[in-house]
Amino acid sequence: MSSSTQAVHEARQQVIAAGRFAAARGWVPATSGNFSARVDAHHAVVTLSGRDKGQLTEADLALVALAEPLPAGLSAEAPLHIARYRADPAIGAIFHVHAVNAAVISRRHEQQGEIKVAGWELLKAFAGIHTHTQSVRVPVFANSQDIPTLAGQVEQRLQDFPADALAPGYLLAGHGLYAWGRNGAEAQRHLEAFDALLQLQLEWERITA
Amino acid sequence: MSSSTQAVHEARQQVIAAGRFAAARGWVPATSGNFSARVDAHHAVVTLSGRDKGQLTEADLALVALAEPLPAGLSAEAPLHIARYRADPAIGAIFHVHAVNAAVISRRHEQQGEIKVAGWELLKAFAGIHTHTQSVRVPVFANSQDIPTLAGQVEQRLQDFPADALAPGYLLAGHGLYAWGRNGAEAQRHLEAFDALLQLQLEWERITA
Amino acid sequence: MSSSTQAVHEARQQVIAAGRFAAARGWVPATSGNFSARVDAHHAVVTLSGRDKGQLTEADLALVALAEPLPAGLSAEAPLHIARYRADPAIGAIFHVHAVNAAVISRRHEQQGEIKVAGWELLKAFAGIHTHTQSVRVPVFANSQDIPTLAGQVEQRLQDFPADALAPGYLLAGHGLYAWGRNGAEAQRHLEAFDALLQLQLEWERITA
Amino acid sequence: MSSSTQAVHEARQQVIAAGRFAAARGWVPATSGNFSARVDAHHAVVTLSGRDKGQLTEADLALVALAEPLPAGLSAEAPLHIARYRADPAIGAIFHVHAVNAAVISRRHEQQGEIKVAGWELLKAFAGIHTHTQSVRVPVFANSQDIPTLAGQVEQRLQDFPADALAPGYLLAGHGLYAWGRNGAEAQRHLEAFDALLQLQLEWERITA
Repeated sequence: MSSSTQAVHEARQQVIAAGRFAAARGWVPATSGNFSARVDAHHAVVTLSGRDKGQLTEADLALVALAEPLPAGLSAEAPLHIARYRADPAIGAIFHVHAVNAAVISRRHEQQGEIKVAGWELLKAFAGIHTHTQSVRVPVFANSQDIPTLAGQVEQRLQDFPADALAPGYLLAGHGLYAWGRNGAEAQRHLEAFDALLQLQLEWERITA
Repeated sequence: MSSSTQAVHEARQQVIAAGRFAAARGWVPATSGNFSARVDAHHAVVTLSGRDKGQLTEADLALVALAEPLPAGLSAEAPLHIARYRADPAIGAIFHVHAVNAAVISRRHEQQGEIKVAGWELLKAFAGIHTHTQSVRVPVFANSQDIPTLAGQVEQRLQDFPADALAPGYLLAGHGLYAWGRNGAEAQRHLEAFDALLQLQLEWERITA
Repeated sequence: MSSSTQAVHEARQQVIAAGRFAAARGWVPATSGNFSARVDAHHAVVTLSGRDKGQLTEADLALVALAEPLPAGLSAEAPLHIARYRADPAIGAIFHVHAVNAAVISRRHEQQGEIKVAGWELLKAFAGIHTHTQSVRVPVFANSQDIPTLAGQVEQRLQDFPADALAPGYLLAGHGLYAWGRNGAEAQRHLEAFDALLQLQLEWERITA
Repeated sequence: MSSSTQAVHEARQQVIAAGRFAAARGWVPATSGNFSARVDAHHAVVTLSGRDKGQLTEADLALVALAEPLPAGLSAEAPLHIARYRADPAIGAIFHVHAVNAAVISRRHEQQGEIKVAGWELLKAFAGIHTHTQSVRVPVFANSQDIPTLAGQVEQRLQDFPADALAPGYLLAGHGLYAWGRNGAEAQRHLEAFDALLQLQLEWERITA
């Protein structure tokens, strides 16, 4: 099954724009992070390993078939992206960053396995949230280098979360944030909202500790 | 009652400039915030819902009549702007941001219902304040999604504040800051002064807690 | 006594450059701060009141004679600048900023009347300091709106400081930092060194408190 | 033994690029820091003393022979660079910065003589680290103005570290960070990774203190 040249190009452009956005905010230091966007029901583009996310070109992104074995050279965490696209056809883009707030707060909440984010107006920046009184649960997973196994654990657990309380993303402890959206613009907005909310939450925990 | 094309254009330009200014400082993440400017005694321009405040164009702003029902598509918080313009004819611009300092400190002081800001030279950046020995009271309101009711509560309470101790703005708890001025330049200066003063106050509370 | 057109122009250009530098770092929010540079033994240029320090032009600076009454329209704190130029002929430029670190730490040390900064390699950025083992004393004065009286107190006390332990600047509590140097480049370097050193000192006090 | 004009030019360009990168992040305030790159087995280029690292030109860099006495005008810390190039022929570039995180945390751990950095995915940004479970030891040395003696102490102690646990850099207490890599790009990536990791570590120590 092939995918149109135009759709591949547009997916790559979404990733390139999001990479620049994240790099300008210091969220992908030292070539960290990995970014992807869906092309169609069966394909996505994913960043190759080790590229500077603030200076991506189309050559830094590989087209992959979601149902087939992954080609060599992809970001090692590509299976976490692929598993999400396969599990939820509404997801159009997934961006993973190593922002400081995400790395610190995820490690702090590793034992609980989740962070409950509540009481902030900015929660409304998440698709489907219409009031600050609705709290959101952000799953936190132990970090791992066995990415295929981790991807299975993530998808299993995300299924168990009540859909209306699940944030559009999750954390890997001491590692970073995965956020998604229906398209690149929404995933980028979610990334920005997560970073601000995790900072608010971290400041609030400092005050109320 | 019509308003001149030139006055509408100038009001829109004030808002566009203030939006860029706020976005560059990270105060309006994930399309949050809403901005307005008065056109004349009976009209104002207000941002439409969901627009990126750092990239506003004139098409992202609607002209509204202050005494008439609001058109569709405005920022949900537009009634908070309209109520202020109706209550105080000297107000020429109102800018609302989701800065981290404002969201955190407002939530901390929600129970007291206000923050007393005192002892900082920067207080003199507020119009009418000529010495650092004059303290300022910043009202804090519980956040709400019922904006028309909230607007009524805000205006009622602002009337009760002694005019010479009232800051040119107020906070919504866990949400953000509303600041105003006689024109776009003054409202923007007040926004900048509020952000620095709330950061100073937050640091000071950390030290003296 | 006249001063050469060229020297006045160069002094203004030093101030304009330092203003842009400080504004880019957020040290002069809401038109705060005031900047000056010496033209010759008897003259200096000083910023006019209320100007945006990040967007100064030559028209925002007045030429003043150090021995004569000050013209109208200057920054209210101009006498603090003039008193320094009169007391120390080696001073070529004076820059005053409202950086957050300076405002917070100055208020914390207001009772002691000074901050001892010690143990940082960056102390060597101050002219005349050649080892990190030499500590520096930064005087802290209570803030005041009576600037001529304050200027007299400052100069009196600076005379009592041992010259080899005096930093090239002082703090006004809850207000900000005054820093000087033999010329605009050195005063700007001192400003940058002070801001980093005060941040280091503040972080260190947090850790060791 | 001479070195090719092209190799000298390329080494200088690596340093100029890294200087701009560091200055944009505030890591080299007040002309602090010093930067170098290897030209060949016997030569390197090193920054001259007192230059603004964000605005380096090729004229701000001197070509030095690693086995010969150093010329005048170099950064006072040049011997720390030269000693590293002589000890490890795989090192292609060395960048030294005065970042706040490095200065604060180094002073905090001066007595222990090292910082153990563990539990962060970003550790994988260091060459040779392939899992977050591998911890890294960052040596911390007391600051000194006797640079040749300090260089000897550094090299002696680095030899005693197990190679697989040694980070590509070390700290001078209250001073800053030295980081290296096989070439300018890797040294710059290591610099960026160190800064983020030291910030993470500092935040984590605050939480767990």
